[in-house]
Amino acid sequence: MNLDGLKDVFAYLEDNFDNDLKATQQFLRRKSISATGEGIRETAEVVKGMIEEIGGTSSIIETPGHPIVYGKLDEGARYTLLIYSMYDVLPAEEPDWISDPWAAEIHDFKDYGKCIIARGAVNTKGPTVAFFNAIKAYKKVKGNLPVNLVFLIEGEEELSSKSLQEFMQDNKAKFAECDAMFFPSFGEENRVASIFMGVKGIVSFELKAKGGSWGGPTERGIHGAFAAWVGNPAWRLVKALSTMIGEDEKEIRVEGFYDGILPLPEESEGALRNSADLLDEEEWKKAYAVDRFKWDLQGLDLWKKMLTVPTLNIDGIKGGYIGEGSKTLLPHEASVKMDMRLVPGMDPEDMLGKIRKHLDKHGYSDIEITEYGKSYYPSSVPYNSTSVQTLKRMYEQMGARPQIWPWNPGSAPYYLFGKILGLPYVTGGMGHGSRQHSSNEYCTVKGVLDFEKSMIYYLSLFPEVAEELKNSQQ
Amino acid sequence: MNLDGLKDVFAYLEDNFDNDLKATQQFLRRKSISATGEGIRETAEVVKGMIEEIGGTSSIIETPGHPIVYGKLDEGARYTLLIYSMYDVLPAEEPDWISDPWAAEIHDFKDYGKCIIARGAVNTKGPTVAFFNAIKAYKKVKGNLPVNLVFLIEGEEELSSKSLQEFMQDNKAKFAECDAMFFPSFGEENRVASIFMGVKGIVSFELKAKGGSWGGPTERGIHGAFAAWVGNPAWRLVKALSTMIGEDEKEIRVEGFYDGILPLPEESEGALRNSADLLDEEEWKKAYAVDRFKWDLQGLDLWKKMLTVPTLNIDGIKGGYIGEGSKTLLPHEASVKMDMRLVPGMDPEDMLGKIRKHLDKHGYSDIEITEYGKSYYPSSVPYNSTSVQTLKRMYEQMGARPQIWPWNPGSAPYYLFGKILGLPYVTGGMGHGSRQHSSNEYCTVKGVLDFEKSMIYYLSLFPEVAEELKNSQQ
Repeated sequence: MNLDGLKDVFAYLEDNFDNDLKATQQFLRRKSISATGEGIRETAEVVKGMIEEIGGTSSIIETPGHPIVYGKLDEGARYTLLIYSMYDVLPAEEPDWISDPWAAEIHDFKDYGKCIIARGAVNTKGPTVAFFNAIKAYKKVKGNLPVNLVFLIEGEEELSSKSLQEFMQDNKAKFAECDAMFFPSFGEENRVASIFMGVKGIVSFELKAKGGSWGGPTERGIHGAFAAWVGNPAWRLVKALSTMIGEDEKEIRVEGFYDGILPLPEESEGALRNSADLLDEEEWKKAYAVDRFKWDLQGLDLWKKMLTVPTLNIDGIKGGYIGEGSKTLLPHEASVKMDMRLVPGMDPEDMLGKIRKHLDKHGYSDIEITEYGKSYYPSSVPYNSTSVQTLKRMYEQMGARPQIWPWNPGSAPYYLFGKILGLPYVTGGMGHGSRQHSSNEYCTVKGVLDFEKSMIYYLSLFPEVAEELKNSQQ
Repeated sequence: MNLDGLKDVFAYLEDNFDNDLKATQQFLRRKSISATGEGIRETAEVVKGMIEEIGGTSSIIETPGHPIVYGKLDEGARYTLLIYSMYDVLPAEEPDWISDPWAAEIHDFKDYGKCIIARGAVNTKGPTVAFFNAIKAYKKVKGNLPVNLVFLIEGEEELSSKSLQEFMQDNKAKFAECDAMFFPSFGEENRVASIFMGVKGIVSFELKAKGGSWGGPTERGIHGAFAAWVGNPAWRLVKALSTMIGEDEKEIRVEGFYDGILPLPEESEGALRNSADLLDEEEWKKAYAVDRFKWDLQGLDLWKKMLTVPTLNIDGIKGGYIGEGSKTLLPHEASVKMDMRLVPGMDPEDMLGKIRKHLDKHGYSDIEITEYGKSYYPSSVPYNSTSVQTLKRMYEQMGARPQIWPWNPGSAPYYLFGKILGLPYVTGGMGHGSRQHSSNEYCTVKGVLDFEKSMIYYLSLFPEVAEELKNSQQ
């Protein structure tokens, strides 16, 4: 299938785009906040309906956490693609949204032209609903898709996909016919579109210092004047944290933190060299409102730092009186939310053990560690897999330069698809959006249409590429 | 005047105590939260009414912040006492109140018997309203008081008395006839009642680390994956803070922090030696839910630590995502609320300069310092002053052992009364309450009655003691 063969579907998409845009906005207006559970179940029902509307079968499967929406669209095709996505989003408590994050209004936003401003616009309810819009159009114009689809759409991605691993282990049979996994997303920026051949791993956890046998108030904050007599858990947390990192975050001082990291494959080193020029560093800094990169890194060094080095980040810190004005208080506890991002060769469970050991060694055995959700292993898929090669060809033929990365610096539970189901995976699509996890998360309106076209093309290409790869291996 | 001469007033107080208790509860039920302004103006009006009800004149005087209630009760007496108090309280957001902090319910609380549980029960709306109850009773039974009163009741004590200094400087004439200042409070614990001959000083301030030219996101938090490229203001704050204090808070490492501290006067050293046995250390730890004193201090060392050593306390720390669950975020700012408590010889303005210098020296000139409200100088009054001697005699004759301290480890703007008006001051009264600034702030019901009696006795003694001191100095 080439692009000419899809002209009729693309024309249909263009003609009906107003409806698709409305459907996209409508889906974004639903709250589906996994952290609080708000709107989760209702949204799962809606997603089930979306699968059924394109002619599939679907069921809502309970987990110990939020339900998973499972579905199948059997088109009698030779190959089957597993579509993995999520229907949950983060809260949207940031104060500086230009419009209600749940109103999904369209604004001219910065240099991006018309954009939908909404929590989930890019991560990931925007692409999810647009994917269904695309399938609907294809089926209307062409009939059956050239590939079967299996859907796994979870509601806990923003809670580290807590229930996903167990679900997959217990339900391998549900995915037996799948040939690859694809996660639809807006992957384009200025006609450059990224292909990540894997993901960094992640461990999210909390450290909590509480009053106890070492000192400090144990049940409640007490008057600040007693600082003369009683130790302060906030000071304790600060001192403990400061042992974990060097000046200017130059190195992580947790013993053995960098042990076992695998060297970057030669193929990936090459990909990086080809990509270093692609980042407009000044543009990036402007977009993210950052004045300066760490240690004035630039060019290839910047990319190497992102992709080959693990991080230990403070996501949030809290303790004592944090309201308006002042209150002299000696708090009884203080806590910090952190995440580690891991590169291949690092094991999440080991890493948490290293944090524990470090704290103990420095005299902070009282500081509690709580892991949030499931940790993710770092993982990668081969360059020569169907998922990657289909995406590469799709981008090239749709006029975007494919930018191939060893792995995504963000994190996702993709490793499970390799580890449990043995599937190659990739994430992508045309279209643009950004500011995920921040205020004014957006996607461009034009990008929604481009994305819909690219999804149709990806699904059309997949069986062809699969055949070619199979033949070339024989 | 001896206690026998007040029997009729005391009997009246006992007979009418139900009404006084109700009035006390009613006053505590009013919110008057200076941090938010809630109920402030209404409560100022009520206080004005209380002064008028005892036959005084009163006016509400505007300030740049919350209004001050000024009043006079001219009894044609020779001596005049300035009654300084406050009508504002802290917020009451602590989660573990056993009853609504604004309901002022009466409960059997711990070992203290019947107590009023309310924000402000001890600090300081409880004593304030009970003071007026006492005056009302005295005037009903005896007619004129033996001393004139001037009232200065402010609404910003919990905001470091921001407007008080300017008000006093601009209105010295309003206090020209005053001979001493008295701050009514519940000063008793197990028949031991404290007399503080001064107060520690305090500086409350915030340090804020923000993204800027050093690095870090400048406008909003960004995705935590970018920790590979972008510095984290929360790490920066942690590293900066950790330079300010030694391990286990053993010493404050801000350069020159301890410079200029005056040695404890011999008289105070003696008072401390007499007092060390008075603290039941195990009892105190139980009451404050603390397992262990700093560095296992005990006895005289404990008291010396409290009274002769300044502190640098973390009141609260905040940055990034502090909601439920996890969110991988690289925050754009992090801040910490702190207070320093100062002993004689230390100057609040100097101290803030030392913090600035310390941060600059360690490379943190970007970290902003904001002072909260006005700082308080440490100060003390002579042992042989009317205020102290009247209180001492009152306690002794009412059956409480007076416990004389060099100064209060808490802080209050009392230094202004010495510095601007040249008045000796003291704070005290019978009655017991505690847990100020915490959940379940309380005062005992019995203590309210004891306090009312003690106020009548204090006012009756004052002119006598003043005469005696005058004669002894001639």
